[in-house]
Amino acid sequence: MSSTAGKVIRCKAAVAWEAGKPLVIEEVEVAPPQKMEVRMKILYTSLCHTDVYFWEAKGQNPVFPRILGHEAGGIVESVGEGVTDLAPGDHVLPVFTGECKECAHCKSEESNMCSLLRINTDRGVMIHDEKSRFTIKGKPIFHFVGTSTFSEYTVVHVGCVAKINPHAPLDKVCILSCGISTGLGATLNVAKPTKGSTVAVFGLGAVGLAAAEGARLAGASRIIGVDLNSNRFEQSKKFGVTEFVNPKECDKPVQEVIAEMIDGGVDRSIECTGHVDAMISAFECVHDGWGVAVLVGVPHKDAVFKTHPMNLLNERTLKGTFFGNYKPRSDLPSLVEKYMTKELDLELEKFITHEVPFSEINKAFDYMLKGESLRCIIRMDG
Amino acid sequence: MSSTAGKVIRCKAAVAWEAGKPLVIEEVEVAPPQKMEVRMKILYTSLCHTDVYFWEAKGQNPVFPRILGHEAGGIVESVGEGVTDLAPGDHVLPVFTGECKECAHCKSEESNMCSLLRINTDRGVMIHDEKSRFTIKGKPIFHFVGTSTFSEYTVVHVGCVAKINPHAPLDKVCILSCGISTGLGATLNVAKPTKGSTVAVFGLGAVGLAAAEGARLAGASRIIGVDLNSNRFEQSKKFGVTEFVNPKECDKPVQEVIAEMIDGGVDRSIECTGHVDAMISAFECVHDGWGVAVLVGVPHKDAVFKTHPMNLLNERTLKGTFFGNYKPRSDLPSLVEKYMTKELDLELEKFITHEVPFSEINKAFDYMLKGESLRCIIRMDG
Repeated sequence: MSSTAGKVIRCKAAVAWEAGKPLVIEEVEVAPPQKMEVRMKILYTSLCHTDVYFWEAKGQNPVFPRILGHEAGGIVESVGEGVTDLAPGDHVLPVFTGECKECAHCKSEESNMCSLLRINTDRGVMIHDEKSRFTIKGKPIFHFVGTSTFSEYTVVHVGCVAKINPHAPLDKVCILSCGISTGLGATLNVAKPTKGSTVAVFGLGAVGLAAAEGARLAGASRIIGVDLNSNRFEQSKKFGVTEFVNPKECDKPVQEVIAEMIDGGVDRSIECTGHVDAMISAFECVHDGWGVAVLVGVPHKDAVFKTHPMNLLNERTLKGTFFGNYKPRSDLPSLVEKYMTKELDLELEKFITHEVPFSEINKAFDYMLKGESLRCIIRMDG
Repeated sequence: MSSTAGKVIRCKAAVAWEAGKPLVIEEVEVAPPQKMEVRMKILYTSLCHTDVYFWEAKGQNPVFPRILGHEAGGIVESVGEGVTDLAPGDHVLPVFTGECKECAHCKSEESNMCSLLRINTDRGVMIHDEKSRFTIKGKPIFHFVGTSTFSEYTVVHVGCVAKINPHAPLDKVCILSCGISTGLGATLNVAKPTKGSTVAVFGLGAVGLAAAEGARLAGASRIIGVDLNSNRFEQSKKFGVTEFVNPKECDKPVQEVIAEMIDGGVDRSIECTGHVDAMISAFECVHDGWGVAVLVGVPHKDAVFKTHPMNLLNERTLKGTFFGNYKPRSDLPSLVEKYMTKELDLELEKFITHEVPFSEINKAFDYMLKGESLRCIIRMDG
């Protein structure tokens, strides 16, 4: 039992007081974990686009003041009532979506969309008592997607915590708790390209590059990267991308360009931009008879996906995925293990382009907004 | 070698002289099979909606005079140059789409959309020499989808002929050469419901009932039939349908009704109407996390499939199928075998509601147009 168990912990957290304004490092009080909750010390966290979207809160429900952050690695400090499979000292990845292991989704082999702990971006409180565990001078500060990792300590539902090998390098594997797993899993778990097949990836940000990395690991023979920003092409080669298409530079729809490049279309495509036009192109660029298109990017709430039904009837498959179809507690530990043993030749280092101390967390936002970074690791001890 | 091999055969055929007018039984000349072609004696044929569509030629390219018909069973009379795997006397099913065994589609385990012999409803001639094998007093009569089974003898490309067990009852298994296999395969080969799962079938014509039959054979626990005609509900019970929904009698979209009936949606749905609204409902009525919707019905050429991308991102799968994903030559013989040995408890007799002699073929059209028949067998010897 740690000396802090059962007590309020005072520590530093980066608070988003209002939309779009720089985060402010504040001293916060972190209450002890309640029933089925875990309090953990965050060692490393990284910044994902989703943090930026909800910080900007453009078209999103503004929930402030809030502690953002959801990609991280840490160590369990104490556990609440009913938590039996985690103990202080365990190395863990908090995850923005959970796995209760009891609902129909958790019991299904195909779904990872837990009914109890599915991502909820509007909720700023814990589900146990609908209260926040964070306060500043007694006033509540809201949580973000159940993780709020931009804090030295945070409280997370046990169902949103993956226990991993304590020898795993937390400063690397922390990025598996969201974006990289999302792209990687979209390819390896959902699109499932076979060795020698052709794959198109729409959007060459971190998630798209992780999807390309998945295609590289699966032995794809050609990986076509599609992005509106040609500056991203050079970097993407490291992730296995063999050819590039910029739709802005094409005189016909990109799906037609790809169909001409690869006799009739690619075997698999993965859409990682969230723009509905890219979704339609990603679907229509797969080969009839066997092509599979996988949607990853989250669209605008008013977006409408449109296609001619014959594109489907010609034996194409269209499917979506969430968090790469990984079940957080069941699958992340073995993904970390495969990375460590090199069973999966996943090169996480390639995604980590920047590193800053916690005190300079706003720099991570700048790097991302300027499009300079893939992943910026934030060291909590700095 | 039969005595007719290499010679023109004079026989009876039902000729569609113009759109929507009763067929006329005429004496036709059937030329010998050319390279990679087979001439066969048709013993039984049945009428499918597709024959009616192209006979009505509403919105279809009118190709007349033409010999329609594509669901049939017969016996090989003679074979043309290069045909090595069929011989006179073989029992066969002609199929409206083919399998060349050489193209990328035929070599793919996933596709049955042969590049060479894929269905072509506009073509009225053989691919070898772009000529018809049918004439009346020397004037050509057009073929239909490469089969033209409303004739005592017809010529078919060898790639469109499935050789089956000679002990199979041709008056029953003839219906496996199109509609029944299309619906059955959509369920068994594509939707693949597991034992105990829930299935919705949109459209309770012969194809939809074959899809329901597939769900029954797969052990589905609940099979929801959806049709605008409530008179179809009683009959559908024989095919395993357990519950019925008539969208016209619902005060909300049928996908919402189904989601309420079956906590969140069905595990699988199969769309057999070809109406785009039904396609959208069939997709949106499957459960998030694991639901799979399969499109079978052929839409209007201007139809647009529309849905919110979140319906996909919530881990639903949408896919289309053609001829139930059966490869005609590779898969139909074993389907017939499974029917005969009862490995598959497929009850073909339930689909056969009428039977007429060839001389009364127009009655088969009447039964279908009035919605009275599922399948009407036409006996060529009558």
